[in-house]
Amino acid sequence: MSEEKKYSMDEIVNFAKTRGFVFPGSEIYGGLANTWDYGPLGIELKNNVKQQWWKKFVQESPYNVGIDAAILMNPKVWEASGHLENFNDPMLDCKECKSRLRADKLIEEHMHKTDDTFVADGMSFDAMSKLIEEEDIKCPVCGSHNYTEIRQFNLMFKTSQGVTEDSSTDIFLRPETAQGIFVNFRNVQRSMRKKLPFGIGQIGKSFRNEITPGNFTFRTREFDQMELQFFCKPGTELKWFDYWRDYAEQWLKDLEIDMDKVRIRAHDEDELSHYSNSTVDFEYLFPFGWGELWGIASRTDFDLSRHMEYSGADFKYHDPETNEKYVPNVIEPSLGLDRMTLAFLVDAYEIEDLGDGQKRNVLKLHHRLAPFKAAVLPLSKKLSDEAMKVYEQLAPDFNIEFDESQSIGKRYRRQDEIGTPYCITFDFDSVEDNKVTVRDRDTMEQERIAIEDLNDYLKEKMN
Amino acid sequence: MSEEKKYSMDEIVNFAKTRGFVFPGSEIYGGLANTWDYGPLGIELKNNVKQQWWKKFVQESPYNVGIDAAILMNPKVWEASGHLENFNDPMLDCKECKSRLRADKLIEEHMHKTDDTFVADGMSFDAMSKLIEEEDIKCPVCGSHNYTEIRQFNLMFKTSQGVTEDSSTDIFLRPETAQGIFVNFRNVQRSMRKKLPFGIGQIGKSFRNEITPGNFTFRTREFDQMELQFFCKPGTELKWFDYWRDYAEQWLKDLEIDMDKVRIRAHDEDELSHYSNSTVDFEYLFPFGWGELWGIASRTDFDLSRHMEYSGADFKYHDPETNEKYVPNVIEPSLGLDRMTLAFLVDAYEIEDLGDGQKRNVLKLHHRLAPFKAAVLPLSKKLSDEAMKVYEQLAPDFNIEFDESQSIGKRYRRQDEIGTPYCITFDFDSVEDNKVTVRDRDTMEQERIAIEDLNDYLKEKMN
Repeated sequence: MSEEKKYSMDEIVNFAKTRGFVFPGSEIYGGLANTWDYGPLGIELKNNVKQQWWKKFVQESPYNVGIDAAILMNPKVWEASGHLENFNDPMLDCKECKSRLRADKLIEEHMHKTDDTFVADGMSFDAMSKLIEEEDIKCPVCGSHNYTEIRQFNLMFKTSQGVTEDSSTDIFLRPETAQGIFVNFRNVQRSMRKKLPFGIGQIGKSFRNEITPGNFTFRTREFDQMELQFFCKPGTELKWFDYWRDYAEQWLKDLEIDMDKVRIRAHDEDELSHYSNSTVDFEYLFPFGWGELWGIASRTDFDLSRHMEYSGADFKYHDPETNEKYVPNVIEPSLGLDRMTLAFLVDAYEIEDLGDGQKRNVLKLHHRLAPFKAAVLPLSKKLSDEAMKVYEQLAPDFNIEFDESQSIGKRYRRQDEIGTPYCITFDFDSVEDNKVTVRDRDTMEQERIAIEDLNDYLKEKMN
Repeated sequence: MSEEKKYSMDEIVNFAKTRGFVFPGSEIYGGLANTWDYGPLGIELKNNVKQQWWKKFVQESPYNVGIDAAILMNPKVWEASGHLENFNDPMLDCKECKSRLRADKLIEEHMHKTDDTFVADGMSFDAMSKLIEEEDIKCPVCGSHNYTEIRQFNLMFKTSQGVTEDSSTDIFLRPETAQGIFVNFRNVQRSMRKKLPFGIGQIGKSFRNEITPGNFTFRTREFDQMELQFFCKPGTELKWFDYWRDYAEQWLKDLEIDMDKVRIRAHDEDELSHYSNSTVDFEYLFPFGWGELWGIASRTDFDLSRHMEYSGADFKYHDPETNEKYVPNVIEPSLGLDRMTLAFLVDAYEIEDLGDGQKRNVLKLHHRLAPFKAAVLPLSKKLSDEAMKVYEQLAPDFNIEFDESQSIGKRYRRQDEIGTPYCITFDFDSVEDNKVTVRDRDTMEQERIAIEDLNDYLKEKMN
């Protein structure tokens, strides 16, 4: 596995802004705490990632169907899921410099000086307080050792709905999409007449009031998840766990991410959640280090059982083959859309050495992910009207750019930089011979194609 | 225009639930105030509406590009847009029965008994209070006349981010997607090197703390918008207003909605917002009456000028042709995705009389909108494995259903009911002749097609 970091995050962030991929959120008002807006190219890339996931995990799989649950849910959902009680970060303040710190991170940073496998996750407040005392852990900001007690900080965003404060209900922005799937288990199974095993996929926004968001779009307070909950018979779950882990790996390979920058890391016994009997993380080597993309967890019957307990709903499955009744087990592959999009962007970003001191910026995105599939470029503004007809011929089939500014060389470089697989140049000969020059982004080779064959030509290239 | 309401909303809501289109949100916990979850078929329909809009309004138009701004924005945005000050409903309470009422609705309902053109929108609180007194308007719940004063109720959902109450900032869930476009005007124009006229499209969630949500998915507190902001030179805006009004109308026609149930209603002088010099609403005749789908407004330079004033950003455009500098004008076609999806569903819903006392439920959705494009049906379970190969052949190109339960007649009816354009039956002859029977949803005619030609056959039908 390569530990080499070719490009810095600053370079990626700057590229993303100036080339129309990602802008700082609310920028003209000084921004808002690590929010980001996808620009014209960013949203096409993000939508393509989304569609590739939906196609593969929902539509093409004969087992799975999709859903789109509301962001605002009945608060009892978060009681049942455990988020109201447990979705907390442990916080403490330095009394000297008033810095607010995460207790677990404070401890881990200190302990990793001597033991880089130390994990504070799961420690009680008492145990953490005691360790901070014993180890005399200093405030990383001012160097003193004088803290408040450790307190819980719930990561769910709270709001209220209804007319006035007194008649309103406190509600939460969902911190994960998964619960919208669990509460609909029976609705989906019944309306779609599904038999086990089957899965329900969902793409949607979640919100977490992270204390320290950061690393560009990798960790933000508002983010999109792509989650699958796969329901199966208890006892078969580890087989299905392997199935979806391999399926996820294949999806990454098909979209040609550099697998040398991907590692699949199984959780140890003591890292596992109490309800999970197997979990792996897919991590990608970003310029800032390894970051989690995908978590794949075998969650046993924990989620459905909790909702049965809290709601009284019957989520037992009546197996028509064995005539047994049981609560299905769940395999959950959960992927962050924004970080997956960022990984594809970082992975594709290249400054290619062309020899003779020549370089070019090129975004080597898989064709299916490229924002534009081709760009139509009239060689001269005099040819714009006729080149526009080529655009109009292609636009119903592909997302096409039309660019008539600057020299043809500069326009090629622009299209290379934003990852457009093909440039189609309409020149003065085109008027006579009804052919155009098609240039390949990766090989930079050019060939002459009849305009009437262009749609088929591109369709073939895209498959 | 037909005023006939063939089916009741109750029938549509029940159909949507039992057939997997829309479920009540958080249903197992007793729901949450008119929230709804899209089921497996509903999300495919909604995604298809979304994609058709994006394709036509963003990708195919040589003028437009897309964007995807964050839901959480800097609160100054809502100061500049006027939402903090003006996005209110006027409320009052009945002191006798404690009912909470919207003052403008209370007045309108009363006045419409004698004058059905009366509009309370735009009246001051004083004027409303006076009219309630003069007309002796009674509480519709208990019939008494004893009210509190009228108060403002802001429709934005408020939340806070950051670590503790004292260091946190009040922020809002966006009540419209449009502002995410305005604040990025310069970022988009510059990174995409756009010249006027050009537009920026966006699809995303907005949130409004409506006092009375209702009519199924027509009015919900959480909803998706599909908005375009089209920027043009002042003086040309009414020409572009007509252009986008016609473009929107054509989009509806292309997707074959019943245009007898659509009306395009221009706002009168006194209905127009103070900044608008022309506005039309596209309305659809739902079973509960006419409801707005699309608002198309010429908003002059109001939005960009306000953001220039509040942020100090320079949104003036330097016209390379005339060398002038000016603030662009904006045309805004704003469409609600959930209500558009509902209109397509209602419009397609039919109980068809087949003669001889026979009826069938059929959802006559345009092919592009249908959740499944075809269903593969093995005539007998013995044929499942071989029929699955047909599914696997088609699934990379189309969203396909595989159904092996019940009699073939029942399966046809199921597919008619959920709008699947083609049923592909794999029978015992198929094993020998490598052909299948393809049945057309609308004509119910059947023809025998070679399996190897199926993908091309469906592709042609879909175009």
